[in-house]
Amino acid sequence: MKRITLLLVAVVILAGIIAFTAPASLHADDSAAPIVVTKIPPGYRDWSLISVAHEEGNLHSFAAVLGNDVAIKAYREGKLPYPDGTIIAALHYGHVPSAENNKVFGQAQSFVAGAPTNIQFMVKDSTKYAATGGWGFAFFIDGKPAAPASMQSCFPCHNQAKASDLVFTHYAP
Amino acid sequence: MKRITLLLVAVVILAGIIAFTAPASLHADDSAAPIVVTKIPPGYRDWSLISVAHEEGNLHSFAAVLGNDVAIKAYREGKLPYPDGTIIAALHYGHVPSAENNKVFGQAQSFVAGAPTNIQFMVKDSTKYAATGGWGFAFFIDGKPAAPASMQSCFPCHNQAKASDLVFTHYAP
Repeated sequence: MKRITLLLVAVVILAGIIAFTAPASLHADDSAAPIVVTKIPPGYRDWSLISVAHEEGNLHSFAAVLGNDVAIKAYREGKLPYPDGTIIAALHYGHVPSAENNKVFGQAQSFVAGAPTNIQFMVKDSTKYAATGGWGFAFFIDGKPAAPASMQSCFPCHNQAKASDLVFTHYAP
Repeated sequence: MKRITLLLVAVVILAGIIAFTAPASLHADDSAAPIVVTKIPPGYRDWSLISVAHEEGNLHSFAAVLGNDVAIKAYREGKLPYPDGTIIAALHYGHVPSAENNKVFGQAQSFVAGAPTNIQFMVKDSTKYAATGGWGFAFFIDGKPAAPASMQSCFPCHNQAKASDLVFTHYAP
């Protein structure tokens, strides 16, 4: 019995190591895709603000990053890792010039949120998502979940932010 | 008695016309400063998101625009004018590059909220703030209200957005 338990422990550890170290390219087919969240958490649009961001490069996007009550409490208390139940939402929009505001300012200087592009979520469940640092990743376009294959870069990318429990966004006071 | 009433009405109307049409420069001394809101509305940091903005020019700022429940309901229903009790908060931060994010992206493309610069509020009370389109304006730096003299540009500027009840920010879905 003891031998079986040890064997099981070894298998679990090994699986964890593989999940943590396997490059995204190893998961190129859907059957090996990471576990992802495919339901939009209800009420997210009412959540409080964590912070904002703006990406250039190929993105030209605004992000409004919101958190559920568990997330906001954890951010304000500055405790890591984030507790189970934490959900962080990144609402993305186009970063577009505002002709209306620029007219008032008398010069081209103002950018506002354009059409929504996608919504991303990180859901903390240290048991369910143990293989990806305790976080489940979600990505929605027009309310529909992205194909699992397109989600393979979420964890390897966020895993670079180990010092902040895989979360890039800092709280804006 | 009737004559006194009519005279009073005429004075009130005239005062209203002057308040609406007087350029900001006529209010250059504090004694003639517009009515402003000098207390930070409690709980504003928990309010829901209206939208985000980014100003260049001399500002280099991010805005996260939040609304209390009355504001969010009015925005979502698309009804104008905003009802009494509406409060809109614009939290401003520096628009600063993120070395941390750029490292992950492999190029300079990411901007995040830097230090907070100021918080502005618009408070709707069609009676109390009748002379300024029903809106009271507030501006805080480090939690302290700005001098009334510095507030004189709020109403003339917002008054250019008459079609949206003096509010510039549109709701981001």
